[in-house]
Amino acid sequence: MPQISEKGKAAPASPIRKLVPYADEAKKKGRKVYHLNIGQPDIATPETMLNAIHNYPDKVIEYSHSAGNISYRKKLVEYYSRYNIHLTPDDIIVTTGGSEAILFAFQSCLNPGDSIIIPEPFYANYIGFAVNAGIKIVPIPSSIESGFALPPIADFEKTIIQNVNKGVLKGIMVCNPNNPTGYLYSKAELETLRDIALKYDLYLFADEVYREFCYDGKQHFSVMQLEGLEQHAILFDSVSKRYSACGVRVGCLISKNKEVMAAAMKFAQARLSPPSLGQVAAEAAVDTPEDYFTDVVKEYTLRRNIVADAINKMEGAFCPKPAGAFYIVARLPIDNGDTFCRWLLEEFEYNNQTVMMAPASGFYSDPKFGTDEVRISYVLNAEDLHAAMEVLAVALKQYPGRKK
Amino acid sequence: MPQISEKGKAAPASPIRKLVPYADEAKKKGRKVYHLNIGQPDIATPETMLNAIHNYPDKVIEYSHSAGNISYRKKLVEYYSRYNIHLTPDDIIVTTGGSEAILFAFQSCLNPGDSIIIPEPFYANYIGFAVNAGIKIVPIPSSIESGFALPPIADFEKTIIQNVNKGVLKGIMVCNPNNPTGYLYSKAELETLRDIALKYDLYLFADEVYREFCYDGKQHFSVMQLEGLEQHAILFDSVSKRYSACGVRVGCLISKNKEVMAAAMKFAQARLSPPSLGQVAAEAAVDTPEDYFTDVVKEYTLRRNIVADAINKMEGAFCPKPAGAFYIVARLPIDNGDTFCRWLLEEFEYNNQTVMMAPASGFYSDPKFGTDEVRISYVLNAEDLHAAMEVLAVALKQYPGRKK
Repeated sequence: MPQISEKGKAAPASPIRKLVPYADEAKKKGRKVYHLNIGQPDIATPETMLNAIHNYPDKVIEYSHSAGNISYRKKLVEYYSRYNIHLTPDDIIVTTGGSEAILFAFQSCLNPGDSIIIPEPFYANYIGFAVNAGIKIVPIPSSIESGFALPPIADFEKTIIQNVNKGVLKGIMVCNPNNPTGYLYSKAELETLRDIALKYDLYLFADEVYREFCYDGKQHFSVMQLEGLEQHAILFDSVSKRYSACGVRVGCLISKNKEVMAAAMKFAQARLSPPSLGQVAAEAAVDTPEDYFTDVVKEYTLRRNIVADAINKMEGAFCPKPAGAFYIVARLPIDNGDTFCRWLLEEFEYNNQTVMMAPASGFYSDPKFGTDEVRISYVLNAEDLHAAMEVLAVALKQYPGRKK
Repeated sequence: MPQISEKGKAAPASPIRKLVPYADEAKKKGRKVYHLNIGQPDIATPETMLNAIHNYPDKVIEYSHSAGNISYRKKLVEYYSRYNIHLTPDDIIVTTGGSEAILFAFQSCLNPGDSIIIPEPFYANYIGFAVNAGIKIVPIPSSIESGFALPPIADFEKTIIQNVNKGVLKGIMVCNPNNPTGYLYSKAELETLRDIALKYDLYLFADEVYREFCYDGKQHFSVMQLEGLEQHAILFDSVSKRYSACGVRVGCLISKNKEVMAAAMKFAQARLSPPSLGQVAAEAAVDTPEDYFTDVVKEYTLRRNIVADAINKMEGAFCPKPAGAFYIVARLPIDNGDTFCRWLLEEFEYNNQTVMMAPASGFYSDPKFGTDEVRISYVLNAEDLHAAMEVLAVALKQYPGRKK
């Protein structure tokens, strides 16, 4: 039998999905499982998108242009201008979700063996994309005590100098607002990153798929707004979270760097076309009324407060109250997040209910970090979140591996 | 400015799409351009699929399972059983088009530096996928004189032994029916490939996205029907051509090899989900009435005959009459296919019409091969094909680079 590849062995299983069999078992026992583990919002997809699907006009569902329909790219230019991001359609390649944008960028910018710096904890699937491209992620730790703010500039420079000297460091990547921490990077932090990127001639990759999800009156600031960084900034975006339409699989890769875009375009042509149905929905979505987002932000602020306030009342537990996305990383008084999350599904119940969370270890470059942390997605409604927090509080009292 | 990657430089531009700017110019001059260059059929997508889209029931367009909806995978099991291919849902990972199935398989089965054998000419985008995975394609020439049949077994063994000794040869890949040649491999040819794959412990990758397009009463035989090859056979499939629904971006990766599927699943999880809207359409498509295909096969047979008969009447031109897909590779009395195809768009017109074809050089591992060949897609209706062949005949008489 032929052997599988080294990459096939090295790719990590999803930390978000690996507990699914235990959740299935719990449900078979008749237990209500509150899913705090997933990034699939319960918010309705806007009518604009559903109507576009229901009224799909064509008789043949054809390939689109490999870079995406020009009509959609023009609408995206309009969308980004609302955020003071000034683009032309040529700066945009429509991709199959944000994931494909990351894959295209890694393939186009980085050689196997190259490395990029990412503040950790970071979105677990970045590891899979890095394995795919044969590159290495060099983590710089951010701390729960500082709310997972950008690590001190000194940490970056130390790590950069070590790796630049080896000739392999090619970029820095941030997720803003952050998955899993919810941290919203400030304009000043991004300007710091710009200065580093320019000083050491590094790409600055930014995953901004949670752009709309900013709370407490804070504004999102994009890498594409950084002056002087036009040749270094690479933006990954997606409509999945923005319009609660994860299944349309429409994202985009954005850069003013024409060489990068020309290279990415060759990979885009090889796979022919992003999804046509999704693009029709995504194009219509740009005309979604502004109050859709006002309502969504209000709802997520409420949910975040429910979770953060409840966690911080639990003895020995702590979490920041992040200003973006819909995730919270919480430190719990437990021996091990993996064990705890599995115990919740396999052994625990409270009034025939339990909760499912993502152990935070999967969001660190080395699973020995974040062992007493979990990621909570607040994608359930307020009532369910209250109930889930009650369940979690009881569970923490009963858990045999509770820290004294 | 940071440098782009070596892969970004090495990836080839699409030979099918690179002439597009010249076609656009011709159209601006008011010329009718017959598109014989593309694989986008004009056949209507079945009502089953369009109805499924128009009646999309959900309020939230959610992610599907990373391996695809279980309801769709069960329907696929039913679909394949009609072709005597016996699967379980676990043998199937739904992908974003056939392209992603190839990428997952290359990532899961092959290490950078490994090589696979492909009879040439071959589908141009395989080169892009190979660059993506850092692997090498070792071509084995098939000849237009033999209708592009499987090259002699002796050619395979010679090439295999050379490469196996280097420790890098890991597989053989075929496209059946073939793009670009239209050749339909026989059961006997596939059994030959099986014997070689087993003898040298190689993967046998098969791209069978044109399965339904077989003519002259011939039947398709799949790698998944080869007894004893369960651990070596990897199938790539897609609904794009089957239902004239290229834009839904739904394909699948199929294998009985559980290690390969487990590795591929990790890459599938990293990108979260294949398109949900496309899957709903593709699931409905499995219930498309059989006469849809009867009509389609009749129509393509007619079209193939129009093109092949016309070419073979042109002085100095020759093409086989292939039994599958909807492509023909023709040898023309010309100095160079790239120059000729560009000349057709830039300089030639006949009654204000011209034709666009894909130079065959892009389908060879080295562009010095196939220089007097073109690939013709017969995806236009009979009337347009007759007109296009008349235009081509006139063009061949006038072309300054015509071979004496």
